[in-house]
Formats: sequence, C-alpha cells, structure tokens
Amino acid sequence: MAITAAIASKRDGGELTKEEISRAVSGFVSGQVSEAEMAALLMAIFLRGMGARETADLTMAMVETGEQLDLSAVGGPTADKHSTGGVGDKTTLVVAPLVAALGVRVPKMSGRALGHTGGTIDKLTTIPGLTAELSPDRFLQQVAEVGVAIAAQSDRLAPADRLIYSLRDRTATVESIPLIASSVMSKKLAVGAQGIVLDVKVGSGAFMRDLRQARELAEAMVAIGERAGRRVVALITRMDEPLGRAVGDAAEMVEAIETLAGRGPADLAELCEMLAGHMLAVAGAAPHAEEGRARARAALAEGRGLPTLRAMIAAQGGSATALDDPAALIGKVEERPAYPPGEGYLTAVEARAVGSAVRDLKEAVGPAARAQCGVLLRAKVGDRMEGQPAATVIAPCGASGALAATVERIERALSVGPEAPAPAPRLAGVVGA
Amino acid sequence: MAITAAIASKRDGGELTKEEISRAVSGFVSGQVSEAEMAALLMAIFLRGMGARETADLTMAMVETGEQLDLSAVGGPTADKHSTGGVGDKTTLVVAPLVAALGVRVPKMSGRALGHTGGTIDKLTTIPGLTAELSPDRFLQQVAEVGVAIAAQSDRLAPADRLIYSLRDRTATVESIPLIASSVMSKKLAVGAQGIVLDVKVGSGAFMRDLRQARELAEAMVAIGERAGRRVVALITRMDEPLGRAVGDAAEMVEAIETLAGRGPADLAELCEMLAGHMLAVAGAAPHAEEGRARARAALAEGRGLPTLRAMIAAQGGSATALDDPAALIGKVEERPAYPPGEGYLTAVEARAVGSAVRDLKEAVGPAARAQCGVLLRAKVGDRMEGQPAATVIAPCGASGALAATVERIERALSVGPEAPAPAPRLAGVVGA
Repeated sequence: MAITAAIASKRDGGELTKEEISRAVSGFVSGQVSEAEMAALLMAIFLRGMGARETADLTMAMVETGEQLDLSAVGGPTADKHSTGGVGDKTTLVVAPLVAALGVRVPKMSGRALGHTGGTIDKLTTIPGLTAELSPDRFLQQVAEVGVAIAAQSDRLAPADRLIYSLRDRTATVESIPLIASSVMSKKLAVGAQGIVLDVKVGSGAFMRDLRQARELAEAMVAIGERAGRRVVALITRMDEPLGRAVGDAAEMVEAIETLAGRGPADLAELCEMLAGHMLAVAGAAPHAEEGRARARAALAEGRGLPTLRAMIAAQGGSATALDDPAALIGKVEERPAYPPGEGYLTAVEARAVGSAVRDLKEAVGPAARAQCGVLLRAKVGDRMEGQPAATVIAPCGASGALAATVERIERALSVGPEAPAPAPRLAGVVGA
Repeated sequence: MAITAAIASKRDGGELTKEEISRAVSGFVSGQVSEAEMAALLMAIFLRGMGARETADLTMAMVETGEQLDLSAVGGPTADKHSTGGVGDKTTLVVAPLVAALGVRVPKMSGRALGHTGGTIDKLTTIPGLTAELSPDRFLQQVAEVGVAIAAQSDRLAPADRLIYSLRDRTATVESIPLIASSVMSKKLAVGAQGIVLDVKVGSGAFMRDLRQARELAEAMVAIGERAGRRVVALITRMDEPLGRAVGDAAEMVEAIETLAGRGPADLAELCEMLAGHMLAVAGAAPHAEEGRARARAALAEGRGLPTLRAMIAAQGGSATALDDPAALIGKVEERPAYPPGEGYLTAVEARAVGSAVRDLKEAVGPAARAQCGVLLRAKVGDRMEGQPAATVIAPCGASGALAATVERIERALSVGPEAPAPAPRLAGVVGA
C-alpha cells in the first residue's frame, strides 16, 4: 500500500519523501517491493523528474543497501573518477596509477562494456593473469599498499543499483538524468573517496548528445556528491571522434601504457592531464586543478606512473611482461587498411560507428579472441588525407569475413572535406568544486 | 526487445501500433511480457495518454486473449449495460429482467464490489441457492430460454483485463481514461451484445468526480464500441447521494424487487426507465429511447418484469420465496436510527461516505452475515427534517459496536440547511447513438 501511494504521488508530479524513497529501494532489494511496482515508479520518475533532494535521497538509499568501504586506513587523501562512457576512453588506466604516483590513493571500481563503449575492466584484464575480482578487503589492502587498485564493481556495494539498472534496461527507463546520476553516484559514494572527478561526455559518440543534457547530468551528480559531503567536480568533454588512436581492449591497454610512458596521443594525454589535475585538487593534494595538471603533465613526460602501474598489475596477479612488451598483449592479428572516401582533410571519424563496429567484430570472433579486435586510427580529424589509409582494423587470424565487414563500416564512419574543420575545444564545461 | 521499444515509444509520447499493442497484451497473458514491462507501459500510457484508435486496438487485443460468446442462437435482439459504479446502484437487477420482458435478450455479466461501491453479484446472490457462476454455455442457454442471465464475469472472457486490472491496482495506474474504457469495453465486446448502454456516474460519490472527466470516459467507451460495430450510448448520471433508499446487499436486492413491482423509489425508477429505454433503442426493439422509456415505465407500473426475474432466479437455482417474501432476504437484524445534524432541509447524503461506511460494516461483521448490513434512507435530499431520523442502519444481531460506529459515520454524511437545494437533473449528458 505504501509503495502504491508513493507511485501515485510521483505519477501526479509530487515530491517523494526520504522515507518513501528509502522504503521503495530497500523494499525492492529485499523483495517486498515487486519489479512491477518499481517499474511503475521508475517510469513515473522518468516522466515527472526528481528534484535535487529526492535524487540525493535516492542515491543514499541505494548506498545503504550494501557495504560502504572504510578508506580511513588507506593512508592518505583519496580520489575517484568516473566517465559516462566514450569510445577509446582508456583514461582510467592512465590516470589511476598516475594520480597514485603523485601521492593520492585511488580506489577505483569500474564497469564492463556498455552499449557501443568498451569497459575498463575488459581492457585491464587483457593483461595475462590479472584479476579484477577483488574482495572489498583485498581491494582496500591494495589501495593502502600500492596506492591504487582497479577492480570490477563489487556486488556488495550498492546492490540496489545493479537490480534497478537491470530493471531500467528492460523497461525503457535508462535515459533519465536523476536515475543515471543516482546510479553513478551510489557506486562512488559507497567506495567512499573524499574527492570525485566525473568525466561527462557530450557529442555524437556519447550517451548525452547535447550540451544542455550533459550539463544537467553533471549538475545532478555534483549536487548529490556535495550533499554527501564530498568534493566533486565534473568535466564536460567532447566525444565525437574516438579518444586517442586505439579502440579495442588489448589495443587500448597498450595505448594506456604508452601514454604513461609519455608517448601517448596528444588528445588522450591532454584529457588525462586534466582529469589527474582535478583529482589531485579534489583530494587536497594540489592547491588547484591547474597546479595539479602541471604536475600530472610533468609526471607523464617522465613516465612516473609506470612503476605504480607495474606494482598494481603485480598486486592483482598480472604478468609484468605486459609492460616490457606491450605489443604482445595484442598478439598475432590480421590487419586491413580502411580508407577515407577521398582526398582532403579528415572532417569526421564517427566515434559511435567505430565503437559499434568494434563491438560487433568482438561479438563475431567469440570470447577467446575478443580482446584482439580493434581499430588503430592512423589519422585524426583535421589531418590531411592524400590517398593513405585513415585506420587499420585488426582481428585474430581466421576472421577475414568479419574483418572485411568491419573495414566497410569504419570507412563509412570517415568523412573528408576541402578544409580542415576548426578544432573544437575538448573541454565543454566544468561543474562544481 | 520489441516490448521495450514500444514502452519507449509511448514514454516519448508516440502512438503505439496495433501490432505493438497486440504483442504487449497477448505477451502479457502468455508470460512473455513481464509484469515489470507491462507496469512501465501502463504508467507511460497513464501519463502520455492514448488516442481513440490505440484505445480501440487495446480493447480488441484484450478481447482476443479469451473466448468471445456467439449470441446468434439466443433468438432475438440483444442489449447489455454497464455502470461505472455508484452507491445504491441496483439498476441491473431491475433493468435486465425488465428489458428481457420487453423482448430484448440481456446477456449480463457483472462484477463484485469495488472500492466504496457494492457489486451486482453480491446483491443477486443474497437469494438463497442462486448461483452466478455460469459457464459460457449455460449462460447462453439461459439467455435463449429465459431471455436474461446475470452471471459473474467469466475468467474465460478477456482474461487480459483481469490480469491488467490487478497490475494497475498495484502500480497506481487505475485512474486512466483509456485504461478504464478499454477494461470496461473488452468485457462488453467479448459478451457480444449488439447494443450497449453505459451508465457513467459523475459526482462526489462516483469514481469520476467532474463532468469533463466523465464525458471523456463516456466518449472513449462509445468510440471503442462504434469501432467494433456496436450501437453504444452512454448516459452520464449524477451520483452524489445514494441511488434509491437502500444501500447493502440484501436490502438492495429487496429494493430491486420492489421496483420491479412498481413500488420503487422515484429516483431509482426514473434511472431504470431511462436505461431500459435506451437498451430497447440500441437493440432496435424501440424506434428511439423516448418510446423505449415509455414502454419501460408502463412495464414497471404493471410489474411485467417480475415473472422474468422469477424465471431467471429459478434458472440459476435460486429460491422462489425471495419474490414472495423479499424481507426474508435481510433476515433478523438490529436497527439503529441515524439523525441529521439539526432541523431544516436535508441538503446532502454523501454517497461516498455511506458506501464506505457500509463496506466497513460488512468487513467488521465477517463474510457469513455481510449481506445483512446496510443503510435504509428514510429521507432523501430536499426532504424536510423535523427531528426524525434520516436513515436506519441495519446489521446482524450481535454487532452493536460496529453498528454504533456506522451510525456515527452515516450521521457525519448528512447535512441540513435552511432551504431545500435546487434539484439537480439526474441526467448530466448523453453520448453516442
């Protein structure tokens, strides 16, 4: 009865009380609130929206359904990050060890691939032997000892989020700002870092295609964090062409290592410096983000994050040879060039199309060789094309059919024009802190 | 996947296709569409609405989940009726045998009590021995032989309606015009009468409290019927004070018998004449509703419906003594007077409050004696009160506590004033035919 009254209240545009929200969420996890009741409530929230107080209450209610980590023993300031998902986004693999090397503890839980975007855990676990399944205790111990751990999202943290997300996926209630914001922030708050940096992607390759929506999401997440007493900043960054030059699990892991060695592509390095700079600032380890960014830039140039990455890989059971011979992560592959539709300046590399093509290629080759699939961009938007290929598609040997189909799709994702497009600034906005 | 796309389409204000609606409804009945998916769709429909074509498609999809009766063998024109529910509304018990006595076959399936309103089946089955559980075959045979049957809604007709209604009840999606309209009409269309008369109640004692909503519901139901090739008319009638003088299962059965004998209260007889007149007209047995109404009035005055009621009761296994000694249906009861708050003219008898009080009294005395509970109105709105009681509350002996509490509630439902209120016309509108 209580839940039906809450559904009716939201349905009619009312504001849910903290108690109504808490009962709905805890009841859903315990089974007292049915999937049908929760689905009706989620659709009402989708269509009627939620205010900042309700969204924060929803987030805390989700946090309270599971364990909350105690970071007091990790020995230093702490910072976490989250990206709403981009194609070629391997920033976590760069930034987490980099920031740890600069004295801030980074307890990072990440997800697997979602939609057209790859998942950090899928990329990280291309390292032989490495596990991302860390118990909360082992996770905390590693953060204390190594300074950083990148683990798969634990089922023991904010279990309501997993259950609600699965329901949203089935009931067409995914794309709701308060529901997305509470989902992301429940996991961050349960981990417990003092400072949180959010990378909200905007553009044709992002879940949020327009700036207004992206800003709304960023503001909702920052507001939740602030109500929970955390320092939170959200960077709104462009996602039109893929980030960096590599798309694909092993290829992206390789590129992350190269970037930590100071040899990364300019756009990826730039974003990593920005994110790391803000992480240092929100953790209180740098006086402001500009200073943090300068330190991050210097540390990248000097390869200072590599020993930390090495220690993290070792702690998670991974093979050290990954760092000595990164190319081996990709292994023996078949390669095919992909050409732009003519000569001129490359005006677009559609991130969404590239991401979907790689996802489907992975699907086609099956689980064992999935990590080897990828696209290596030999040109970026603005480059002059004079007959050379713009990309190389790679796949395990023996998958020629799928490879050829992927080349066609990548070629359709490329555009050229008579003039180089004006470069759009990566950073489209900053919210919070 | 298909259902999620349909949910998203309605969520965004789109129009569902006939196929999407049909898949959702048949899938829900077969279990392929989950309660969660259906709940999300229902909430999206609740908040986004549905057009006339969609509502008709939803109704037909619900009809197609079950059996559809073949009335071709009942031997005559057919008419059905439905009321959206009022307090003291025993019109079916009067009108069905009356219309049958006038040559139109009346295949009537009815519901049980809902909310603050009583159910026709609960009233009818106060007759000893009578069953309302008729198989479709027996139901059809009785309509052919007697001219009328009043049976409980069969689970074999429009089973989707029962499942969807139960889900709506749990997910705060009941009060939606297209969902209410399709629910009512799916059952009427499955029974299959050529003509259908709808009594849409409006007022403080009705589910629809304002005229605009009532008219919208009436129009939605008439549109569904017309698209299905039926003759449908909806009367919008006031429901502020209870209809007639009796509220309570046995008391209402008694009043229905009295009304068929030409001794009914004026308001009840008036509404029965209107409904019967329209039923004769939509069935084609009278040239227009006015002529039908005149015939119904004459037939009531002459008690011509009583032999048909007697035959119907006998066919359904009921005791004939019900008609010879109706008061025996109520049996031995304790009685308490209920007084208005002072002298003057009775200005209100709140139907909703009376209905809820009787429902709770029934609940308090338990299932065995439930039918004996009731309120007998000794005064109607406009009557001069000079110290006499306005009502008598009745309950089985030994329920004095509940009886006293009910008297208090009934007294709170009464108002007096220095002047008699201007009588509101019973008929607030007619839609269709």
